[in-house]
Amino acid sequence: MALLVQKFGGTSVADIDCINAVADRVAGFVKDGHKILVVVSAMAGETDRLEGLGKSVAKRPGARKCAREMDVLLSAGEQASIALVSMALMERGCRARSWLGSQVRIRTDANHMKARIEEIDVERLRADLAAGVTPVIAGFQGVTPGGDVTTFGRGGSDTTAVAVAAAINADECQIYTDVAGVYTADPRIVEDARLLSVVTFEEMLELASLGSKVLHARSVEFVGKYDVPLRVLSSFQDGPGTLITTEENAMEQPVVAGVAHASDAAKLTIMGVRDSPGVASKILGPIADAGIEVDMIVQNTGVDGLTDVTFTVRRADYEPAQEILARVCKDLDARAIDGDERIAKVSAVGVGMRSHAGVATRMFKALAAENINIQMISTSEIKISVVVAERYVELAVRTIHEAFGLGDEPVGEYTRPVG
Amino acid sequence: MALLVQKFGGTSVADIDCINAVADRVAGFVKDGHKILVVVSAMAGETDRLEGLGKSVAKRPGARKCAREMDVLLSAGEQASIALVSMALMERGCRARSWLGSQVRIRTDANHMKARIEEIDVERLRADLAAGVTPVIAGFQGVTPGGDVTTFGRGGSDTTAVAVAAAINADECQIYTDVAGVYTADPRIVEDARLLSVVTFEEMLELASLGSKVLHARSVEFVGKYDVPLRVLSSFQDGPGTLITTEENAMEQPVVAGVAHASDAAKLTIMGVRDSPGVASKILGPIADAGIEVDMIVQNTGVDGLTDVTFTVRRADYEPAQEILARVCKDLDARAIDGDERIAKVSAVGVGMRSHAGVATRMFKALAAENINIQMISTSEIKISVVVAERYVELAVRTIHEAFGLGDEPVGEYTRPVG
Repeated sequence: MALLVQKFGGTSVADIDCINAVADRVAGFVKDGHKILVVVSAMAGETDRLEGLGKSVAKRPGARKCAREMDVLLSAGEQASIALVSMALMERGCRARSWLGSQVRIRTDANHMKARIEEIDVERLRADLAAGVTPVIAGFQGVTPGGDVTTFGRGGSDTTAVAVAAAINADECQIYTDVAGVYTADPRIVEDARLLSVVTFEEMLELASLGSKVLHARSVEFVGKYDVPLRVLSSFQDGPGTLITTEENAMEQPVVAGVAHASDAAKLTIMGVRDSPGVASKILGPIADAGIEVDMIVQNTGVDGLTDVTFTVRRADYEPAQEILARVCKDLDARAIDGDERIAKVSAVGVGMRSHAGVATRMFKALAAENINIQMISTSEIKISVVVAERYVELAVRTIHEAFGLGDEPVGEYTRPVG
Repeated sequence: MALLVQKFGGTSVADIDCINAVADRVAGFVKDGHKILVVVSAMAGETDRLEGLGKSVAKRPGARKCAREMDVLLSAGEQASIALVSMALMERGCRARSWLGSQVRIRTDANHMKARIEEIDVERLRADLAAGVTPVIAGFQGVTPGGDVTTFGRGGSDTTAVAVAAAINADECQIYTDVAGVYTADPRIVEDARLLSVVTFEEMLELASLGSKVLHARSVEFVGKYDVPLRVLSSFQDGPGTLITTEENAMEQPVVAGVAHASDAAKLTIMGVRDSPGVASKILGPIADAGIEVDMIVQNTGVDGLTDVTFTVRRADYEPAQEILARVCKDLDARAIDGDERIAKVSAVGVGMRSHAGVATRMFKALAAENINIQMISTSEIKISVVVAERYVELAVRTIHEAFGLGDEPVGEYTRPVG
């Protein structure tokens, strides 16, 4: 008798057969006596279709004036799928009711297309559960205090699920997806990549934000913030999936839990800038103002009072970032700008790094042995990221995976899903 | 400088080119200094697509328990189109904002899939207009006091448009569609069918409810109730369209304004029922309880204290109505039931009938001359309807059109659209 949030992504509700399979699964849990809150994404491809329509009427659909309308447009996708899943549940004799973000209400800030959840009112959801009704909640969408529809950015349905689980104090938040869980590396690249039984939310956060596409980064933050046990499982095959938990609850702490990579990156350098206080913000401020997210930032120690600053952005932002940087270069009287839009970031992640020295050296040595040139390095307590030319990305992932013996032995015991 | 509601149906926003054409048209009006409120339907085919999805998960999507979810599902269609039209307007330098039914708020009863508007709060729309923003309102959808999404049935966007026009006291409500206006008969059936310049709302009401698919019947009721001038025009060709107005404002009052037909009908008869007070309600009550709309009802004078009752329903309701009637037949100890699911209704409509005798005779004679057997007759002050076998429907329409000389001379002067 568990209280569970079960989230089904786009591929899990891709068509009527999939929706029926989801309904079978949820109805089975309900019949077993569990209380289930369902969160669903739009049917696979639907958000792309809607986004495509938006792009064909507006030159810059992400621009401030259009973002409110894009949210109205995009949120229509989940609206259809919650209705369909609710009906499919009712066909199975399982009472159900759909909930839009604005109906729940999932209150957010007014930052359209990447809104953040501020508060979830779970009163109506509790009333449903008490009445034996299974609530089916639209992922990815919320509402501002003024009543405008907002969305959370791609993958935002995960965040809805975890936030609802936190707000209602669920026993477990289960994210059903098209992969079996979180792997030590992308199995399409690394043949002996293993499914992780447990991963800490800090590791998952690094893995998610570093390009491992299993979970929306913000959803993982909630695990740490509200201590919600989060599990990633496959909707298509049985298995325990991967439990994402806090460090205290994770039994083993491997030095490196996994290797993540992001190929969708580009780097920009401004050279010969006067190295004075505030120079970094003068360079990166205009970039941020244009809504461009900067990932890694490296500033070299200056020579003759001059310095070079390099940073990475998403590849789609490369051109606008370059234009802005050209203006900054003029304003700051810098020497030149340079860039490369065919780079990739590869990272080793593990909470065990905290207590182990020599991890970086082992990683750099392994890459050097394969003649992979490291262009940038960035480290945190639990991860080491390197930027390499895009053509080396698969080789770099395999090399690091091998160097830390990730394909070898199982990590921890499998924990059974709740419910 | 007029205040206009302009409604664009599904074919007018069928694709991006159409949406751009709508935006061009609206932006043109705004630039000419008019205040425009736009109402849009879902993109053509979208409501069908969503309905099809609903039907494939639920055996009876119209059933009470599913109807709430069908409304959530179906209303997603307009949600996408209002966002797209708003963005297209902004691309043209015309400030715009989309409004869902729940945001306006268009408050309705809780009768899902055929909700009725109870109140429209125009305050936010007025604020938009005052600020130079063009509101783009989702047709077809509203919200219950409890916050549930409702829809108004197929064609319900017309009702939204006229109700908004009434609530905001617009100078004219213009319904842009894929036909040039209201014709004396379906031009696909009658070669010399003429475009009507003016038609009274009572005539239009009969024409709409009798199967002339130009306007949603409920939208026409508002013309009478709130005296909103309503005009049907083509989005694809210029022309004055047809003005729907009150009888006082219509100059000419032809005996017969037009001929309507509805082929989508079936009839059922219960024979040998004891003719006592309350028998009709005993027969039709259970039918209505099942949510089946009954159209024509005919009860013959009884012989030996027994009577026959015949009524028509939509063809899709034929089978469930038959099952119910079989039970009623047993309960009332009636002799038998009978039915025919291939009938059609053909009607002559005109406010001039009020002051002209002999209209019915002229119609019946003309049909007899063509050997068309009349199965049922029903009349009101301004219309005469007959039920004939479905295979005679085109011939019957042409015959009546000819009998009243509807193809001959123009009816009234063309009135120019406002704006």
